[in-house]
Amino acid sequence: MKISHIEHLGIAVKSIEEALPYYENVLGLKCYNIEEVADQKVKTAFLKVGEVKIELLEATSPDSTIAKYLENGGRGIHHIAFAIEDGVANALAECDEKGIRLIDSAPRKGAEGLQIAFLHPKSTCGILTELCEK
Amino acid sequence: MKISHIEHLGIAVKSIEEALPYYENVLGLKCYNIEEVADQKVKTAFLKVGEVKIELLEATSPDSTIAKYLENGGRGIHHIAFAIEDGVANALAECDEKGIRLIDSAPRKGAEGLQIAFLHPKSTCGILTELCEK
Repeated sequence: MKISHIEHLGIAVKSIEEALPYYENVLGLKCYNIEEVADQKVKTAFLKVGEVKIELLEATSPDSTIAKYLENGGRGIHHIAFAIEDGVANALAECDEKGIRLIDSAPRKGAEGLQIAFLHPKSTCGILTELCEK
Repeated sequence: MKISHIEHLGIAVKSIEEALPYYENVLGLKCYNIEEVADQKVKTAFLKVGEVKIELLEATSPDSTIAKYLENGGRGIHHIAFAIEDGVANALAECDEKGIRLIDSAPRKGAEGLQIAFLHPKSTCGILTELCEK
């Protein structure tokens, strides 16, 4: 697998409206897009810092994984997403071969039209890990 | 405060020796430095992904903040560090003025000889946040 850079950091927040003033007025970053990802039951706000996007994630339903994450005491950075140069399908096959537990066995469509797949935190030293491809 | 990029992500691990094979053999990143930061009671391993460093943090003593973090159920990404273009001292003054709770009221020396200071997660939407300057 060839990783070029961190595509984004997914950050769980109770409310994008409450979190944005910190990111914009204190850190000085700029939100350039807010979108809803219906099948994941989240609203997302995107900000850019260098080559990395910060994706604020707010649950739009109590059974969203983000709602459950916060309910279970999860805080802050929910997942890390790597940009894969040689394709997510290829990276998944490689991970599978190396015994890494996959959440998605094939790429699917994520926010911003990316092809994405998740690896299970049990196999990734505790960090929910996303692989992304444009 | 002018942030140029994410300087590093601090990731808490029980054992650098156990975590490195995942980062090197699965993700294909390369560890280029291991150092001990005595006053923080941690051993750190550095890998680079794009412009961002990944700093694996292993406690060297049971009373290290990293040991306590893992003991209290903390997992994965322990803190996010931003590279500050216009100086950490300046950024701290700005944060203080905006009512952000500071852990360090003045810059101090961190790993890799950087000037660093931490902001309290209570004021940063739940994420322990480090400001860095070369």
